[in-house]
Order: sequence, then structure tokens, then C-alpha cells
Amino acid sequence: MPSRFVMTSLNSRRAYVVGLGLIGASLAKALGEVGWLVSGDDADPRVRAAALDEGVIVDFTLSDEHTLLFVATPAGSVAEIANSLLHSFRNPSLVVSDVAGVKGSIVRDVLDPRFVGGHPMAGSERRGLKGAKADLFQGCNWILTPTDMTKPETYIALHGVLREIGANVVGVRADDHDRLVAIASHVPHLLAGALMNEAAFTAQTDAVLLQLAAGGFRDMTRIAAGDPSIWPDVLFENRDAVTDTLVALEKRLENLRIAIADESRDIIEESLASASEARRTLPGRALSSENLTYLRVGVADQPGVLASVTRAASELLVNIYDIEIAHGIEGIGGTLLLAVDSAQASLLLDELLTLGFTVVQE
Amino acid sequence: MPSRFVMTSLNSRRAYVVGLGLIGASLAKALGEVGWLVSGDDADPRVRAAALDEGVIVDFTLSDEHTLLFVATPAGSVAEIANSLLHSFRNPSLVVSDVAGVKGSIVRDVLDPRFVGGHPMAGSERRGLKGAKADLFQGCNWILTPTDMTKPETYIALHGVLREIGANVVGVRADDHDRLVAIASHVPHLLAGALMNEAAFTAQTDAVLLQLAAGGFRDMTRIAAGDPSIWPDVLFENRDAVTDTLVALEKRLENLRIAIADESRDIIEESLASASEARRTLPGRALSSENLTYLRVGVADQPGVLASVTRAASELLVNIYDIEIAHGIEGIGGTLLLAVDSAQASLLLDELLTLGFTVVQE
Repeated sequence: MPSRFVMTSLNSRRAYVVGLGLIGASLAKALGEVGWLVSGDDADPRVRAAALDEGVIVDFTLSDEHTLLFVATPAGSVAEIANSLLHSFRNPSLVVSDVAGVKGSIVRDVLDPRFVGGHPMAGSERRGLKGAKADLFQGCNWILTPTDMTKPETYIALHGVLREIGANVVGVRADDHDRLVAIASHVPHLLAGALMNEAAFTAQTDAVLLQLAAGGFRDMTRIAAGDPSIWPDVLFENRDAVTDTLVALEKRLENLRIAIADESRDIIEESLASASEARRTLPGRALSSENLTYLRVGVADQPGVLASVTRAASELLVNIYDIEIAHGIEGIGGTLLLAVDSAQASLLLDELLTLGFTVVQE
Repeated sequence: MPSRFVMTSLNSRRAYVVGLGLIGASLAKALGEVGWLVSGDDADPRVRAAALDEGVIVDFTLSDEHTLLFVATPAGSVAEIANSLLHSFRNPSLVVSDVAGVKGSIVRDVLDPRFVGGHPMAGSERRGLKGAKADLFQGCNWILTPTDMTKPETYIALHGVLREIGANVVGVRADDHDRLVAIASHVPHLLAGALMNEAAFTAQTDAVLLQLAAGGFRDMTRIAAGDPSIWPDVLFENRDAVTDTLVALEKRLENLRIAIADESRDIIEESLASASEARRTLPGRALSSENLTYLRVGVADQPGVLASVTRAASELLVNIYDIEIAHGIEGIGGTLLLAVDSAQASLLLDELLTLGFTVVQE
């Protein structure tokens, strides 16, 4: 893909990763492959020793020279560790991020312009340092959740680094992220588990059941085979969105059950027809383009501008492949340069104009 | 696979298929490929004309020479058509079967020793005569639901024909079948539809959701893409089992929701751990063997013997590859010859002895 962008605006290429599980260690490897010098640490002494032995990290020492810090620990511990790091290292161009699957509670607890929450949507059946691989994020969607407090430079620097390791960056609000993963990931896991348990319960008296279960059942329960230990924390952190989604699904199942009792053919057929239509038009996962158009967006130096622009893009399903900032020489404004798919450029341009931005297509 | 069995005991190789949709037309083609002369018909004049044109059937005429009749119409119409055929054709060695996805109501309504209900578990995203193919049933599990009224010869002849077209025959009770498909097929379809609809509803305000939906969500909603029009009939016919299963699943989801509200880590982790274990040990679908052992079972000529033997086998997950009957010369008893996987032969032998049968392993 052609790009006019310098891949990172950070002034050193030294990164630090706290937590060397599957995601943290894969991130350390991926950064190492594109020329970063990566230090890191893990709470488990065997993991930290193995990470050093295998060259996943070069040492354990965090210093002022590190410009990019990732907190890759379980969701429940991210805020405390990130705040501690931000408090200890005062460098204004420092960038701190995380990789937890829940974002709202974290961005509410880490109030620093140098922090932006992140979530790589890179599922893997592999586990821990042993399962880590440098190409885990190639082509994956990496969600960032900037807030009104996030400094645009923080977001833009991180976006550039994530592009370097092959990820597609999508900016959404933290609370929207949490609602999205509730319906797209957390509740599907609970459904798959409940269906599998109900089938196993029935199979106690009808052993042949599980042998006869066909492809559809196998598809629907596949994710239930994963590691159960990560889920309680994720579900507790995302309790509100998960609860709302479960209630909505229970209601939908109850309505179908009543429609079956009443032989309400139309209700059942309409419900399944709309699901069929939605599933068949589910957009593909690939977010990539060979044909980029550049938009230059005039922005005032005021809180939330970056979050507004990235949110407008994600709402329109316009992927921002690259993003760069040029401050005005007076320091009271500047320009965001966005690279987007040429086919989508006018869509985003119109929306940004509607939102009151000055936009020029190059 | 070695077999000592004559593949069919029927005394003509002329079959008739009523309803030439995906399953009926595939069945006609499959029978044609193994040397049957197949007639048939369809309510849709274009379908019947196309079936004749394409050589799926040789003519539309049903006569005394047809020894094997399949009713391949929607579940709601099977009993009436089967009863009409059984009434019109009195040949005692006639075999009549069906292919509907629900069995309890049908076997209760078709009370004839020459009928045995069937259900090929051959899913396909293809539809209608156009989608039909001769190898649709190769390696698929074909469930038969003999009752106490079913004549052993009926079951055995049908078993032989289905083996000819490549299916693995599994005998279970009709009500058990209906409970099995409720949890293995019908309710998963409803779940997939409800999840897809809820996601589509959320996506109205968060368009990026569907683009970010990862592999797990895609797996879980895949079956929702199918043809919605077949479902109301299936769900109404299997209302009791579907309703019971939906209620049980709603209860499981409610319990998980309460456990999340209470932060009951143990309940969530135990539930997901048992699901993970059950999913990872889900038996494979392949039911085939190169290594057969033959069991000779002495049976009195009394109702239900065949159903008892096939049910015992399916409960033990022992697949009966082939089955044949030899009547005693006095006509007051006989012998069933069963071919089963050698590794499972003693399991079935012990169970049949426990049930009071005389069994000899050859």
C-alpha cells in the first residue's frame, strides 16, 4: 500500500511491555520485527526469564528513554499500572496504551492526555508467551478509544506504530466499544457455553445426541472450547453492557417461544428472514485498500477534536489508514492529514463539513 | 468396507419419491446411481417437468411394481400422504418412509407395519431440485425411528437401501429424535437468529459493529443465513421439545446474568469450564469402520424387538453398519444378523444379553 506518512512520530524507538502473555509477547515480537528495541516484564518469574531467554525482550528495565508503554495485563489491573507509569514518567511525548477487552472503566480511571485505550481484535486459540507470534496482528482490527482528554499526538503516534505492525486501526468511543464487544464477543461466548452445557446435560440420557450433532451445532459451540479462566474478569468489567445484551436476548428467545406456542407463522418467518438477510450482508472483515485519498482537516487545538474525527469515520465505516498532524505555526490550530479509501473519501468529507470542520481533499 | 450382506431384500428395484425438493431429488438421483429405477412427482408442475427432463425420475406413475416409497414433502403433510399410499397399495412387502425433520407426530399418525420414519441429517445451503446431488447422503447420519409396530423386515430393507447410497443408519425412538434435534438443530437456529437480529439492531446506531464482528460471532450466526421458510412448520411440529429446550436455555442465561451481577466468579468459571470440556470432547461425526464383527441375535417374532435392538445400539453409540434377518423355519422366531465395529461388539453383546436376548458372536 502506498503511503506518504512517516510511520512514527515518536522520537525514540524504545518500547516497554508490561505483561508478556499471548498479546503482550506477540506485541513485543511484532515491534521487534519492525526495528523497535523492546523491554518488558511479567509478574510470573518463569515467564519473564523465558521472554529474555527467547529474545522477546532485551531487558527488564524501564527508563526515560522508553517512549511507548503498553500495559498488557488483565483488564482489572490495567488502570492502576497505567496510572503508576504515567505518574513516574513525566515525559510529555510519552504514549501509554493497553490491550484489555473492556475499555469504559479503564478510560474513566486513567485521566491523562498521554493515554489512549486499545483493544486488538486478534483472537487466537493459542495461549501465553509460548503461543505468541510476531504476525498475530497482521490485518487485525485494533480498536482505539480516544477521549476528550486524549492529546491528538498521542493517538496519532500510536496509530502509526500499530500500522507498522500490520493492524487496521479503528477509533470508537470506549462505551460504544464495550457495547459492541458485549454483543459481538462476550454474550456469544456465554450463549455458546449455555448451549453446549444444555446439550451435554441432555446427552447424559441420550448419548447419541452429541454424535449426531451436525455442522450448525458445531459452529455455534466452537468458541465454548476456549480458556474459561479469562472470562469472569472480562464479564465483571463489562457488566452493564453484557447484562443489557443478555436481557435483550432472553426477551427475543421468549418472544420466539410464545410465537411457537401461538403458531404465529408470520412472526417466526419475519424474524428468521431478517436474521438471514443481516447475516448474508455481514460485511467482510478485510479493511485494506490500494487506492488512498488524502483529506486535510483544519482543527482547532481544543479537546475532543481527534475523538470527533475518528468517531465520524468509524460511524461511516470509513477506515482511516494513516493519520498525521501538522500544527499551525501560531500554535493555535493545525491540520490533520487523513488517508482513506478513495471510494469513501467524499462520504467522510461531507460528514466532516457537516460537523463544522474545514476540509480539503488533496 | 467388507460386507457379507445382500444390499437389499426388496424384490424389485423400483422406487417412488413424492416431493422433489433438495432431499427428495437428491434421493432420487442417489437411488438412480446405484441401479434403482426411480419414479416420482412434485406438487409444482415446473419442478415435476424439470425432474423428468433432467432424468432425475423416469416417469410420474406409481404402480404395484414400486416396492419402496419415500414421502419427501414438508413435515406437516407427510402423515396424510403416507397413509394414503399405504391404503392404496396393499403389498405386504412394501416399504414406506419419509425424510421430515420431526418424527414423533408422524409415527403416531402413520400406524402401519410397513412404515418407518426417517431423517437424513444432511444439511446443505443448496435448495430445491436445482441443488440436488446424488452424493448428498454419502457419510451422513440417517436416523430411522422404528416403533413397536414396525415390521423388522421393513426396517431392515430400508437400512440396506440407505447403506447402498452411503448413509450411516442410526435407529432411535421418535420422541428421542425430536428432543435431540431440538437441542442440536432447531434451538441453535433460533439462537443464531436472535443473536444476529440483536446485533443488527445494535448496528443501527453503531454501524461499525458488524464490521468488527470477529470469527466467533461469524461462526455462531452462520446457520441464520439459511432459508427461513422451512422453519415455522418444523418448529410447530416439534413444539414441545423446542419449548422445553428454550425454557432451559433462557434459565441458563438468566443464571449467568445473575452470577455476573453477583460477581460469582466460581459459578461462571465452572459453567464455562464444563462447556469447554464438553466441546473439546465432542465426538467426531465419522461413523465408519473397516473392521466389522457379526453378532447373531435370536429374536422372538414379537412387536418391538427390532426397535429394542436398534435403540440399545444407539444408546451405547454402537453403529449397526448392516442388519439382516433370517426367520426360523417354524415361523415362530428368527435371527437378526448385525454387523458392528469390532471394537464395540462386546459392548453391544453384553447389553443385548442383559436385555434377555440370545446372542452369538461369529
